[in-house]
Amino acid sequence: MSELFDDERYAWAALTYLAEPGDPWLAELVRDSGPARALAAIRAGRFPGGRRREAAERAMARWRLRLAGVPEPDEVASHFARGTRLITASDKQWPDGLAELGVNQPYAIWLRGATTDLAALCRRSVAIVGSRAATAYGTYMAAELAASVAARGWTVISGGAYGVDGAAHQGTLAARGATVAVMACGIDRAYPAGHKDLLDGVATAGAVISEWPPGQGVSRLRFLVRNRVIAAITKGCLVVEAGRRSGALNTARHARDLGRPLMALPGPVTSDLSAGCHSIIRDWQGTLVTGADEAIEAIEALEALDRAGTGMASRAGGGSPPPPARDPASLPFDVPAAQSPRDRPTREDAARDALDREAAAVLDTLPVRGGLPTSDIAARAGLEPATVLARLAVLAVFGLAERTERGWRARRG
Amino acid sequence: MSELFDDERYAWAALTYLAEPGDPWLAELVRDSGPARALAAIRAGRFPGGRRREAAERAMARWRLRLAGVPEPDEVASHFARGTRLITASDKQWPDGLAELGVNQPYAIWLRGATTDLAALCRRSVAIVGSRAATAYGTYMAAELAASVAARGWTVISGGAYGVDGAAHQGTLAARGATVAVMACGIDRAYPAGHKDLLDGVATAGAVISEWPPGQGVSRLRFLVRNRVIAAITKGCLVVEAGRRSGALNTARHARDLGRPLMALPGPVTSDLSAGCHSIIRDWQGTLVTGADEAIEAIEALEALDRAGTGMASRAGGGSPPPPARDPASLPFDVPAAQSPRDRPTREDAARDALDREAAAVLDTLPVRGGLPTSDIAARAGLEPATVLARLAVLAVFGLAERTERGWRARRG
Repeated sequence: MSELFDDERYAWAALTYLAEPGDPWLAELVRDSGPARALAAIRAGRFPGGRRREAAERAMARWRLRLAGVPEPDEVASHFARGTRLITASDKQWPDGLAELGVNQPYAIWLRGATTDLAALCRRSVAIVGSRAATAYGTYMAAELAASVAARGWTVISGGAYGVDGAAHQGTLAARGATVAVMACGIDRAYPAGHKDLLDGVATAGAVISEWPPGQGVSRLRFLVRNRVIAAITKGCLVVEAGRRSGALNTARHARDLGRPLMALPGPVTSDLSAGCHSIIRDWQGTLVTGADEAIEAIEALEALDRAGTGMASRAGGGSPPPPARDPASLPFDVPAAQSPRDRPTREDAARDALDREAAAVLDTLPVRGGLPTSDIAARAGLEPATVLARLAVLAVFGLAERTERGWRARRG
Repeated sequence: MSELFDDERYAWAALTYLAEPGDPWLAELVRDSGPARALAAIRAGRFPGGRRREAAERAMARWRLRLAGVPEPDEVASHFARGTRLITASDKQWPDGLAELGVNQPYAIWLRGATTDLAALCRRSVAIVGSRAATAYGTYMAAELAASVAARGWTVISGGAYGVDGAAHQGTLAARGATVAVMACGIDRAYPAGHKDLLDGVATAGAVISEWPPGQGVSRLRFLVRNRVIAAITKGCLVVEAGRRSGALNTARHARDLGRPLMALPGPVTSDLSAGCHSIIRDWQGTLVTGADEAIEAIEALEALDRAGTGMASRAGGGSPPPPARDPASLPFDVPAAQSPRDRPTREDAARDALDREAAAVLDTLPVRGGLPTSDIAARAGLEPATVLARLAVLAVFGLAERTERGWRARRG
């Protein structure tokens, strides 16, 4: 094995096959034991130091369901030989902003691309994101803004999707700038398929990165989970076009929660796809931006404020400080002991994650206003109440759901 | 004469023929002597109580040039008999906000229209203003916003021009709402001519008002001077479409200076006619508004703040308190004694005002950035330096020009 690939790195790689991002039990296990011992413990089916609580045991059972899908070291090594890399929090390349995610920090980042320093690429960067179903205006402006940002030597970060994301990457490539695509699937997968060439271009001009290992596909929940990484690695987030319930608003909310400058392009109020942008400016105190200069100015103004020691609390853009890292034992993950045995994802194979699918089904039932009791969510999603409770806990960890006096609802900005 | 028409009211009417709005010497004369004695003094050619300073004497000479244009009482009475009214600061109908203009408060307001209480009309009102060369988007939105504002029982105030103003009046009429047109010419003149029917409709559904007496025409300067009245009588100012140097931005600046909620409709950044709106939101901390509800909400939120005693200093929209009324003697009106005799507008007839024309010529030469010395302005405008100085003083009173270290420049928002 090369110096870039040792037992520890293999263990990190393997763990990305076993656990979805943000699993607090895995974070605890790795923190206590390191990646190699954590992997060995999962293979052995028992936690180092003896028995844990029931919720931890269920996590163990969940990970073990995926053991068959973990490639052997030589297969992972062959990925690496073809230029794929795996970056972890102890690497210099690890983007600065990821640590601000606390317990939700990725375990590791898979990368393909020409960049030799992902952290450096992200240090002067803007996320340009927006709707897949962008209008001609949104597509044009995304490309124009990206090209102008790139012409100033800044990196453009986006999600590789159709519409605004794709136009942002394309605009950057046209300006011969650096760009990073943060994927919700393996870096070897072209999603969407029509963006295969574009993503290859992005890799040549920067990096295609993902928390999920090669071969993995997308899911609705994975897009939302991925968004926090876009927000964390960039210095500011610019929404070009977004409907009122667009996924881009989820990225924007993460950016705001992390104290990143939040910006939006205005558009005609007659266009539903500008409604989300106007809401960012009106309701979230985001900065109205009409060009690349204004976006970079907003970021540099905040950095100057931070250097002056004014701190995050006074940031323009209504940013709040990053959430503190939470002890997994305090998370709402610990569902009641009286749950049904069917809570365990025994009906799922390792290729598709029950946690993922079921959480997406739960998310689909949640109202945006008011709240639904768990029993109603269970009935609508066709899941056991205990399963619903566990999935709601995962959604709450990612800030996608919240409990109100009237029950659970989807969390908006 | 009717109870609405006595000597004092005739004197006010006559004075609007003699002096342009904001003439500090007339304000002083009326304050000291009342309108009837002021008129008599101008007719006699001497100030009550004896000789004044030279600048005051020049003002007297200026007024006397227009004496021939003042109609006899029976002619003014015939205007009144046809439904025209004249409102002064001592009338209950005088809109509340005008007093905030201090020394720039109108002497009197000419009115034609169905309303019996202009002040009541203005108490719940929004100014909807914008570019004459509006796009289809701006025209549509002005009409839509105005109709929605009117449907909520609020008055729409605008300037009667083509483009955004006209669409705002039309939208209000379509919703059978109340609307006020503030003119830069006499209320009997249709300006623009193509809006004759529209202005008649406005009169039927509210009021057409002006500081200038019947028969007077518009001028570039009069539009700018008129704008402060739109800003002062309304509770909030919404700019629908405006280029970066649009006259609507002048109205917006007056609204901001008066502490009125300043609002703008966003649009495509690819449209030059939305650039002024975006500048209001970005640079003036104006409120981005996408519908009538949001406009009314912004106004009511500020009123609630004021009721709570938070005061104007903390107003959203960056409003500053209204300027204090200034003693005319302290104004830069008092030009050097060494001036040329040609400073006097002896070459003008009473129908066209030299003050007006020459001030407009001076304004045309002023740069937006930096500054020009008086001698350069004189050369460019083709006027004597002393004339230029006097005109600059008038422009400064209206906030249209300001002196910088490098000379004079046009004042922007």
